[in-house]
Order: sequence, then C-alpha cells, then structure tokens
Amino acid sequence: MPNQTAKITVLPGDYIGPEIMNAGLAVLKAVSEGTFDYQIDEQPFGGAGIDQTGDPLPQRTLASAKASDAVLLAAIGGPKWDNAPKRPEKGLLQIRQELNLFANIRPTAISRAMQKYSPIKQLAPVDFVIVRELTSGIYFGRPREIDAHHAIDTMRYTTNEIRRVAQVAFEMAEKRHHHVTLVDKANVLATSNLWRKVVAEVAADYPTVAYDTSYVDATAMKIISAPEQFDVILTENMFGDILSDESAEITGSLGTIPSMSRGTSGPALYEPIHGSAPDIAGKGIANPLSMINSVAMMLRHSFNRPDLADIIAGSVDAVIETGSVTPDLGGQATTDQVTAAIINHIHERR
Amino acid sequence: MPNQTAKITVLPGDYIGPEIMNAGLAVLKAVSEGTFDYQIDEQPFGGAGIDQTGDPLPQRTLASAKASDAVLLAAIGGPKWDNAPKRPEKGLLQIRQELNLFANIRPTAISRAMQKYSPIKQLAPVDFVIVRELTSGIYFGRPREIDAHHAIDTMRYTTNEIRRVAQVAFEMAEKRHHHVTLVDKANVLATSNLWRKVVAEVAADYPTVAYDTSYVDATAMKIISAPEQFDVILTENMFGDILSDESAEITGSLGTIPSMSRGTSGPALYEPIHGSAPDIAGKGIANPLSMINSVAMMLRHSFNRPDLADIIAGSVDAVIETGSVTPDLGGQATTDQVTAAIINHIHERR
Ligand SMILES: CC(C)[C@H](C(=O)O)[C@@H](O)C(=O)O
Ligand SMILES: CC(C)[C@H](C(=O)O)[C@@H](O)C(=O)O
Repeated sequence: MPNQTAKITVLPGDYIGPEIMNAGLAVLKAVSEGTFDYQIDEQPFGGAGIDQTGDPLPQRTLASAKASDAVLLAAIGGPKWDNAPKRPEKGLLQIRQELNLFANIRPTAISRAMQKYSPIKQLAPVDFVIVRELTSGIYFGRPREIDAHHAIDTMRYTTNEIRRVAQVAFEMAEKRHHHVTLVDKANVLATSNLWRKVVAEVAADYPTVAYDTSYVDATAMKIISAPEQFDVILTENMFGDILSDESAEITGSLGTIPSMSRGTSGPALYEPIHGSAPDIAGKGIANPLSMINSVAMMLRHSFNRPDLADIIAGSVDAVIETGSVTPDLGGQATTDQVTAAIINHIHERR
Repeated sequence: MPNQTAKITVLPGDYIGPEIMNAGLAVLKAVSEGTFDYQIDEQPFGGAGIDQTGDPLPQRTLASAKASDAVLLAAIGGPKWDNAPKRPEKGLLQIRQELNLFANIRPTAISRAMQKYSPIKQLAPVDFVIVRELTSGIYFGRPREIDAHHAIDTMRYTTNEIRRVAQVAFEMAEKRHHHVTLVDKANVLATSNLWRKVVAEVAADYPTVAYDTSYVDATAMKIISAPEQFDVILTENMFGDILSDESAEITGSLGTIPSMSRGTSGPALYEPIHGSAPDIAGKGIANPLSMINSVAMMLRHSFNRPDLADIIAGSVDAVIETGSVTPDLGGQATTDQVTAAIINHIHERR
C-alpha cells in the first residue's frame, strides 16, 4: 500500500455530513503532504444518493467503494427522506453487506482530561472497544414479514459468522489488555448459546487472552457502574447497536468518536458514530473531531500509517486542551476554527 | 377484594430471596394489622423448586399462584443450578406465560433526596416508568433452533399482543404525566413497524396523552443524558429487558426498586428488580427495600390500598433519610435493622 496511490471513496452524505467531511479531508491533506499519496473519489450516498439517483446506495457509489482501499463516510439520513420508498439507512445496511463489513469496531475511551465531559460521577479511566457483528443477526435474517395481524423478524447466526468476528475481537485483545467479554442473552436465546459454543472454541486459540461472558441486561448496567472493567466487548448486531450507543453516551463527547467497519479483506469503512444532526446543519458549528478521528483511524488501520494517525491524535488532544471546541463540548468555536487549529498543530508536529 | 381475605402466594426463592422476603412479610404484617386481612401460601420456586421437586416451577406452586389474588416473589437463581437441566430462570419465563403477565412495569425515579446515590452528574428529578411486553417477542417466538452449524431465534408479535400492552401504557400515562414514548427499531425490524402501526391506533383513543417514538439505540443514550424527558416508555420484551436494567442503574439504588407484572385479569406478580445476590447471601446485609417496596406496590395495585402503600413509602423514605441503610447504599445497617426501623415508623404512622 505505502508505495502506490491510496484510493479513498468519500461519502459526505447529508445535513452536517458534507461540513464535517470537508474538515476531515482538510486534515487528511495537511497530515499527508509529501508523505502519503492518495486520491479521493467523492460519491453520493444516503439522502444525497436518493436525491441524485433515487437510490441511497447508487450503483456508481458501490462500484467506487468496491474499487477503493478505504471508504470515508460522514453521516446520512434526516427528516427530508422520512417517507422515501427506500430510506437512507437502507443504503448503510446494504453497503455493509456488499463490502462484507462484518465487524464494527467502536472505541469508548475516557481519559482523565476528558472526564469533565462525562455525565458519570467518579470514573476510573475507561478504555474499551466494542466489536459488534454487523452483517447478520436480526438485521438481515429471513423470514422478515409483516401483515395485518402479525410480524416476524428472524435472528439467525451461523458458526462461520460468529467465528470470524470473534477472531477479530481476540486479535484486538492481544494488542490491548488481553480480555474479551462476550455479551449475550444465553439464558433466553438459542443464537446466544451458539455464540457461547463457538466463541469458547475461538478463545482456546488465544491462550494469553482472558475470556468471560456477561448478559446483555447486566452489561447495560456495568457500562454505567463499572466501565473500567471492560477491554474488548464482543457481541451480536442488535445488542452491539444498543450497547455501543450507550457506551458513547458515558463519554459525554459523542461528537469526537470514530468507528471502523471491516471484513477479512477489501476496503474498510470509517465513520463518526453520530448522525447527520439536521438541527445544526448549515450553522457551521458541527463538531469535526469525530470525522477527523475517523481519518486517523483509517490511516492507522487501512494504510498502516500509525505515525500520521498519532500526529492527528496529538493535535486533536492539544486543541481540546486549549478549549477551542464546538458548542456540543461547551465551547464557542466553529467547525472551521477547530479544523484550522488542528491543522496548525499538525504543521508544528511535522 | 377489601371485604374478603386476600390470598397471597409467596415465593422466597434462592440465596438472599428468603432473607428479603422475611423483611417484606414483616412489613406487610405491621402495616396490615387490623385493617387488611390476608393469608399467605409459601411455595418453592426457582432453585428451591428444583431442589424440592426437580422443577423450577413445581405444579403446586403454579396451582397456588393461579388461585391467588397476588404473587410476591423475592429472587431466584444462582451458581448452584448453573448446570441444571432446567434452570431456575425457566421457571420465571414459565410463570409469566402461565399467568399471562404480559405487562412488566418498572418505575425509575430519582428524587432530590436520592440523587446522591445516582452515578449521573447534575440530574433533573427523574420519574418514568417502563412498560415492557413480557410474554412474547424473541423470548418465546418459534422456530427456536440450534444445531452444529447455525441457530435461530424468532421475534414475533401479533396486533393483539401489542394492543393490550399499549393500552396498559396509555392508561398509566393518563394517571401520570400524559406522555408515552414507544421505543423500537423501526428503521430495521418488521415487528417494530407493526408496533408503530398498532400503537398509533391505540394512541388515538387517548387524546390527552402525547405520543412519540424513539429508536432503541438513541433511547439507550437518552436514559443517561436526559432521563427527565420520559414519562411512560412502552417497548417490546428484549428492548425492555435491556433498557429497564440500564434505567435501574442510573438511580444507583438498585436495591430499592420494585416491579409489577400483570395481565388483564388474574393475579399480578410483584418482585424486586435485582437478582438473588449469591455473594452476600447469609450475611444478613441484603437490602430489604426493594422487597418492601414490592409489598407496597402490591397493596396499591392488587388490593386497592393506596393508604397502606403510602404508609410504607413514607416509612421507607424516612429511614433512608436517617441513613440507616445497608452497605449497597453506603450504610452499615443489617437487613433486620432496616426492617425494624421501617416497622417502627409504620407503627408511628398508623
Ligand atoms: C441507522 C441504523 C440502521 C444503524 C444500525 O442500527 O446499525 C445505526 O444505528 C448504526 O448503529 O450504525
Ligand atoms: C432471568 C431473565 C430470563 C429475565 C429476563 O430476561 O426477562 C430477567 O433478566 C428479567 O428481566 O426479569
């Protein structure tokens, strides 16, 4: 990868999406200059896809993503498309499947410096990652039916689907604090019992990683009462959706959190964990940090440039320290001011 | 009801279960003396049921519950029965179905006096109730299968199942702050779309109640960031399991929270929301307040004795104020000391 031009598909999406994507791309440009060679291919997606082609995931957007080395997504959706025949979110579910992005990785970290933003009293430093299965379970299982009298959704998992995402979690734990917690509802669900069986087998291949399990309801409590006990949380699609949003909330700094969705090979997708924030779109005050951190995550994981990722991370920390942050973090800075401040820091560090 | 002897089936269950049930029954006796006539029928359930009959829900326990006016349950389960062919929790799922307890009602309240226990900074007073569907959805849907290669669970709802629990929620809202929030995942699930359709119809019958919807992932955030916005949360079984435990945690006083599970007619079941706490069993330090509050909830809702429920509630508040509480609330009192203090207050108030 390092010696050829990296191909990045860029999906600005809707409402604040383009605003924060601009910020992310400006930072990517600043940190890359003379050391990382890339080209971007910007494509419509989500509501923008619907507006331009009638489809939230247009053919040419999918083709670009498939031909890329990584995909950067800002945020999609919003009231404008509430009654569209195919809603923007469908595009998200579809691109996950098409690119086989079966593992969604969401870091939750609260450093001492960030504790002031957390809504939780007296926290020990928190640093865990949720590995959420992203292309199966009740999101995609069939039958999926609705008629005048009843409706059905199907939560379905195969051993292969569980094994591959479990391996992602254990490999990650080997590079972190050597602890994986499988979250499930094994006292009720058949699928959870299959997860327990398969994940125990995978765990045996990683002797240096401690492995335990926790019920999803109890975990929803522990994320508030004792989040410092987690290192890597592994869970199925729906539980991961709920718990990763709950986890983001305990940081109090949603606007800073990036995520990665990956498969075994092929491009990974990087995106902020928050939505398209229609209420603040066009005001120039969207927090660009989640997008900028997504760019750093991409450089680290898709392009093996931890050096550049670290420069961005250090610059972000420095700017947060100065208090030059957007209103969601209690500051008065605009998107552009935060971005410019980060780029200044990047120039100093390079 | 008031003029005949109330029949109460009592299920002490396992570990701390019998300890807190003793406390609850002592309080019931004190508050009832000369004004409320009842008889109790104590029966084995959960692990105790397995030990005595091989079944977590023995025949005679079920028969007693069915013939009762209300069921009081303490807590069941624990490591002793981890490998039992039929685990204690199965008894819980079964009694919910047998008594048709389709609505589980869990209050989450944080008064100013209780804010010190909450792990959340700067809270506005919180006072909401979760109405969780309890006898359908993915807990009971068929097919439910597991083999060497895959597993399946089925989330299934009928319009009738949704309508009856929605009516419980709207009726409750009429007596509270006139606001119902349906929590679902309508951007993904077919069942959620049926919920939206049916609940909108029910909402039309309650013109004084404001009605809105919220995605389950967003709700997991709001329960931490803005819990004061909720009045009655209505949701399906699995989401309710997760969100009601998360909600309990934001109070920081799990050991005080009661719950009610009810159908359209027949006995309702009252129980603490916490488990059987094997780690502190036998030490005499289990918090009896959740059980005592469950007794109050029973008097209010099954026996139409709000006067007695209020006496208990006032006595509980008074004892919490004095700081004579168990270690889970930061105090040094024993189960018996807390119970005795409450009974003293009851005597003063009657
Ligand atoms: C928009 C929605 C379908 C999606 C999901 O549930 O996966 C979102 O909540 C997410 O977590 O990325
Ligand atoms: C023990 C378990 C089956 C049960 C449930 O999930 O319903 C419990 O968590 C509860 O909420 O009462």
